[in-house]
Order: sequence, then C-alpha cells, then structure tokens
Amino acid sequence: MPEVNTSDAVDLVAALDIGGTKTTAALVTARGEVVDRCTAATPGRTGAVAVLDTAAGLVERLRARATGPVRALGVGSAGVIDSRTGMVLSATDVLTGWAGTDLRGGLRQRLGIPVAVLNDVHAHALGEARHGVAAGHETVLHVAVGTGVGASLVLGDTVLAGAHSAAGHAGHQPSAYAGSLPCTCGGRGHLEAIAAGPALAAEYTRRTGRPVADLRAVAALAADGDEPARQVVDLGGTAVGSAIGGLVNVFDPDVVVVGGGVTGLGERWWRVLRDAVPAETLPSLAGVPVLASTLGPDAPLLGAASLARKVLS
Amino acid sequence: MPEVNTSDAVDLVAALDIGGTKTTAALVTARGEVVDRCTAATPGRTGAVAVLDTAAGLVERLRARATGPVRALGVGSAGVIDSRTGMVLSATDVLTGWAGTDLRGGLRQRLGIPVAVLNDVHAHALGEARHGVAAGHETVLHVAVGTGVGASLVLGDTVLAGAHSAAGHAGHQPSAYAGSLPCTCGGRGHLEAIAAGPALAAEYTRRTGRPVADLRAVAALAADGDEPARQVVDLGGTAVGSAIGGLVNVFDPDVVVVGGGVTGLGERWWRVLRDAVPAETLPSLAGVPVLASTLGPDAPLLGAASLARKVLS
Repeated sequence: MPEVNTSDAVDLVAALDIGGTKTTAALVTARGEVVDRCTAATPGRTGAVAVLDTAAGLVERLRARATGPVRALGVGSAGVIDSRTGMVLSATDVLTGWAGTDLRGGLRQRLGIPVAVLNDVHAHALGEARHGVAAGHETVLHVAVGTGVGASLVLGDTVLAGAHSAAGHAGHQPSAYAGSLPCTCGGRGHLEAIAAGPALAAEYTRRTGRPVADLRAVAALAADGDEPARQVVDLGGTAVGSAIGGLVNVFDPDVVVVGGGVTGLGERWWRVLRDAVPAETLPSLAGVPVLASTLGPDAPLLGAASLARKVLS
Repeated sequence: MPEVNTSDAVDLVAALDIGGTKTTAALVTARGEVVDRCTAATPGRTGAVAVLDTAAGLVERLRARATGPVRALGVGSAGVIDSRTGMVLSATDVLTGWAGTDLRGGLRQRLGIPVAVLNDVHAHALGEARHGVAAGHETVLHVAVGTGVGASLVLGDTVLAGAHSAAGHAGHQPSAYAGSLPCTCGGRGHLEAIAAGPALAAEYTRRTGRPVADLRAVAALAADGDEPARQVVDLGGTAVGSAIGGLVNVFDPDVVVVGGGVTGLGERWWRVLRDAVPAETLPSLAGVPVLASTLGPDAPLLGAASLARKVLS
C-alpha cells in the first residue's frame, strides 16, 4: 500500500530531546513512528545560543532529507521549562546560561515552524502515555525510577506540569523506608534517598561496608545470591511500590507505567514492587494495572512529537 | 446601581449538597453568593427515589421564591459520583440503594434544567478553590482534615476526579508517623490512621490509657497544658504538614488550602504543620503558601454552583 506510506511521509513533525550531554532530533509520523533521527553533543558549556544552533541544525538536517514538509516541532528539554511562555525557568550548571533562554522563540525564529516545548521528564511521561503500553488510556501515571525518582500524571494529551512547571517530584515525598537518610534535595527521609539507583548502591555499602561501583553491581550480586544485595533490591522495590500505592489513591489513574534504569534490577525488584502496591491501595483501586515501560529512549521524542501535533490540532 | 443587582438576581444557578444525614439546596449568584437556601433530612434509608424527590423538592421550593430564572443545577453528593455519566458508582449503607442511581438524569427529569454532578468532597475542593482564599489561582491543592483526610487538586474550573472518580484519597498514603497502625481502609500505616480526628483521640488514649470523648476533648486538654495531649496535637500537625510537603512536590500547586474539623485544634496544630511543610518541599517550591480555609459549610454548595455554571458556558 504505497499510498499509506506516502500519506505517513507527508504528515511529519519534528521532535527534539535536549539533554545535558547530547541532543537528539527525530522525524515522527502521526502513528508515533520515528522515521529518521540524528544526534549531536550538546554544547552545554558554550552557552544557550550554541545549544539552540545545534538543536536547530539537527532539525534542518532531517528536514533536508524528509519526504514531505515538517509541520511543527516539539521539544523536550533538560531544565525547568514553562510550556506556556516557552522559557527555560532554571537549569543545572551542565547547561551554562540555559536559564532565562526563550527556547520556543529561539527555535521558532531559526526554523520558521510552530514550536511547543516542555520539560524532558514530562515529555518522557507523555510519550509513554500516548505511545507505550498505556496508549489508549485517558489517565496515566508514569513513574520513572533511575538516578532520581519521578511520577508524572498524563490526562489525555496533557501532562500535569504544575504552577511552576515542577510537578512530578514524587521522589521527594517522605518514605518510611528512607528513615532520616539525606536526600539530594537537601531534605531527609525522601523516597529518592532509598529507592533511586545511586541510593541503592549506597545502601548496599552502608549494610556491608563493601563499596560497589553502581546499581548494576548490586544487581549482579543479588543474582549471585548475595543476601545483603537481595535485601537492598527488596527494600528498593518495596519503597517504590508502597509510594505508588499511595499515589494511586491520590491520582486514581487508569494505569501505572514504571520505567527507568532501576527497573533493570529485574524480576525480583518487580515482584516485591507489585506486592507492595495493593497493600496500600483502596479496595476499589486494587485492580489498577502496574505495567513495565516498553518504549525505551524514544519516549521523550514521542512525547515531544505528541506536543507538536497538539499545536497543529 | 440597581442594574447590577437586577443582573445578579436573574443570573442564578441552584446547588445541592446531598449528604448522608441532610440535604441542602441553595441559590447562588455568578459572584458566588448564596442568596437563599433550605435544608431537609436526607431520607437515606428509604431509597434513591425518595432522596431524589427530596432534593428536587428543595430546589423547587427555592425556584418558586427566586427573583429570576434558575438556569442550571450543580450537585455535590455523598458516594462515588461519575461526573461524565452522572451515575452514582458506589455509596455507603447510609444511603440505601444510592449506588447505581442516575443522579444527573433523575434530577434533570424532575426539574427540567441542565444538571451537573460530582462527589461532595470534590465539590468542596472546587468551592474552596473558586470562591475561598485561593480564588484567582489556577492550581489549588485543597486538603481536608476531619474524620478522614483528603487532598484534591483543582485546575482552573476542574477538579482532578481520576479514572474511577476516586482521586484525592491522600489520607491513604503511607506515613512514617503512622507506624503500622490499622487504617479505616483495611491497610496499615496510612496518614489517616494518625492524623484524622478520631485517630488523634485514639492516639491520646493509647498514650495515656485514658479514654477521651473526641478530638475536642484532646484540644481542651492540650489547651490546659496536658503534655500527652500536646504531643498528640504536634504529631497530627507534623504528619499532615509532612504529607502536604510531599504533595506540593508532586502537584506543584500555586497555593494549598487546608480545612476540616481538625483545623479547629488551633494555633499549636497550625504552627507544627507550617513548620513541617518546608522541611519536605523542594527549594524552588518552599514559597508555596499554605492557607487556612475560610468558606466553612458553604464550600460544597459553591463548588456545585461552579460546576453548574460550567455547564452553561
């Protein structure tokens, strides 16, 4: 059916995933298929103009070889991004001068097409909700467990961004499993301090006195039957599952999708997590499915592309 | 300016607050003023038809003496209410046969005007957000601490209802302060098990071996300098404040409004609550105001009236 392919080819939007170390651009069809992509190092230390030039250049490169017009651009970017104004509200030092940048205006001016922007964590959630295992559901809670822990609510085609574009910091909820451990935010006893990847590696060292390189090392030890490693995996899975159960009672989603590097701890982590969720949920919400993310690194690009399509509609 | 008064008088909607023991109807202006009201006992044990007849009768009574046409009706009702279908999804035994009732259809048929329905807890939050101390803010987190604990997010003129109309059960989030205390939901260690009114009275008895009638008795003891009572008040305020801090990090609201019977514990409870919130919030969200509710029992009526106006717009 060449007509279908032609129709797909001309209905393209561009997506950008601007991270602290690399920037990826993609062309995405209406069905959420990435048909072309390219990547460059993010010149984060050079300043905002260089970051915008690099990002626009990647989109130009894809546009030059596209089989049809690129109608709009969606951008997921590191930093706190205000979708309403298109501005970068704040960012870490990895992106020098990124705070205060007119992200939407700068790319629209360079590319001459409609542009929509959001935070990369929110883009990730939107991609998972619209094109991953949760596709078709109206209310999706996306939980990311990696170097940090987050939980974003997606309602239809909209991510709950919050009044200061900072919604979703579920890793900074108090957790009984974290005791009074210090958190990256300056607080104490937060979920992230016991359940994130670096936190689990640190917990293993606290328990055994033995340093481990990273979470992967803990996973390997647990797989080899190392008892403290197993306990740490169980603790992490239980802490995340317990928090998810509480969030299900607060958000009442159709479905929960869990992704991020820590999910690579495997079946043992998933089992304790899945046991911990219904221990917290209200009886009427005990059936809310908790699913593993399937999209991988394309999720933020697909979320950004969804946002671009919303601008067109 | 008599024109203004006339204009107000003809722009009326009706609101109903259907509770387990009583039903209140009101006429509400576009500015959120209750200009007339009447109340009757809810014939909850008699069945759904009697409840609908009583509710419609109250609205008819107000309509007969109104100074202008009543354009629509908004209803906040006990039970789990599906705003999309207008149906009662579930309810406690206090309202016999209420589950399965076509609440919207039944009142529309009886009254002949557009009807919109929602859960009474969500109506309360909507009223506080649109007409209370948070009026004018786009993103409002309404926390109710009474015989239960809830937290509802209001986004503009919409309450986050959830996929099963059950969103906002923040009292059923795990709390480190609750240990493994049994919760009303069947779970353990939830916020409600240590922070709700009955929970605080029970905690006082656990600590002292002395029974107390209710929360008011604990408040009186604390005011008299009774040390265990003071500790219980502090524990409750800290538990709620800590949970609010975590929810601020998740929802990122413009403002938090706290109401419910437990707020009557007074300044000591408020002080520890207000200290506990910023101990959890991210630095960028530390300035989110936490305000005391001002509306009182009119809040659900004003929320229901807001919903009625949304139907008209």
